[in-house]
Amino acid sequence: MKEIIAIVRINMMNQTKQALTDCGLDAFFAHEAQGRGKGFVNPMILEGVEQGYEEAAAILGEKGKLYPKRVLTAVVDDGMVKCAVDTIINVNKTGKPGDGKIFVLPISDAIRVRTGETGQKAIS
Amino acid sequence: MKEIIAIVRINMMNQTKQALTDCGLDAFFAHEAQGRGKGFVNPMILEGVEQGYEEAAAILGEKGKLYPKRVLTAVVDDGMVKCAVDTIINVNKTGKPGDGKIFVLPISDAIRVRTGETGQKAIS
Amino acid sequence: MKEIIAIVRINMMNQTKQALTDCGLDAFFAHEAQGRGKGFVNPMILEGVEQGYEEAAAILGEKGKLYPKRVLTAVVDDGMVKCAVDTIINVNKTGKPGDGKIFVLPISDAIRVRTGETGQKAIS
Repeated sequence: MKEIIAIVRINMMNQTKQALTDCGLDAFFAHEAQGRGKGFVNPMILEGVEQGYEEAAAILGEKGKLYPKRVLTAVVDDGMVKCAVDTIINVNKTGKPGDGKIFVLPISDAIRVRTGETGQKAIS
Repeated sequence: MKEIIAIVRINMMNQTKQALTDCGLDAFFAHEAQGRGKGFVNPMILEGVEQGYEEAAAILGEKGKLYPKRVLTAVVDDGMVKCAVDTIINVNKTGKPGDGKIFVLPISDAIRVRTGETGQKAIS
Repeated sequence: MKEIIAIVRINMMNQTKQALTDCGLDAFFAHEAQGRGKGFVNPMILEGVEQGYEEAAAILGEKGKLYPKRVLTAVVDDGMVKCAVDTIINVNKTGKPGDGKIFVLPISDAIRVRTGETGQKAIS
């Protein structure tokens, strides 16, 4: 089992979760977050920070520099990881910075509270 | 060490965290999320989506189909996982869809910022 | 690769993310949470709960006992973990309870949506 964490644009959540049902993935949760990737930051500003310019540090530290994002989390069988990742890319790829990131984490166990089922049974 | 992520009903948070103190678990954090499990979705709708019916896809994609939940996160010793999981089940099990899920993830390290303590000492 | 999850005081987020750029770490996301560490709880209250005093349980279960925090999440190369952890400690350590916790989790894979790059390339 793996946990898939996808950071996507806010307005892409509905399309993403709809597309994921095509992989048979219909159990997940989501929350709001603020994020920034390398692509968001002007390299000149980073260079300025390295050289100790307070102005650059101020720009980088600005709250506005973290963009509102949505974080989608799902726990899936190993065999479903590829379909989920490909689907998230297909739906969210515009080629512009801010398209998002996907992280895949190992899962030790999953439990469905209603039935007490564990492992694969808890997520299928 | 393990990270325990429990997705529970919003109104079950207080009882859950109170019950967890019986396992000696009193350090954790929580956030709001929207979630959906398989149990939430009418199979007819899923079938409709598979068959390409836009109406079914629209229902499935509706924002309202993600229910507000609370996500409780705690990092515990391996020996405490069973007590925590059993407690979360005991408190949250109603037998109805929406009771929630628990995920257990491996943790590489933990650090207490105040003291710099690492590993087991950081969480005990 | 590792995922670093840092729970810090709300008013320390800007300084923390600014300081992390010194490690070359400028891609991350953050969300709001409520949290509690052992340090937040009067041991007398915990003892009271153990002895079955409802008053103590009520105090411990109070919603107000969970403090608003910020959770910073970043995925980094193994070689960057030490710099990131040291930086978060340096910025957030006051010596008082509530300084926060840092958790390090194994990551199986990372994918940049815009390019489809995986692994180390996705986060560098």
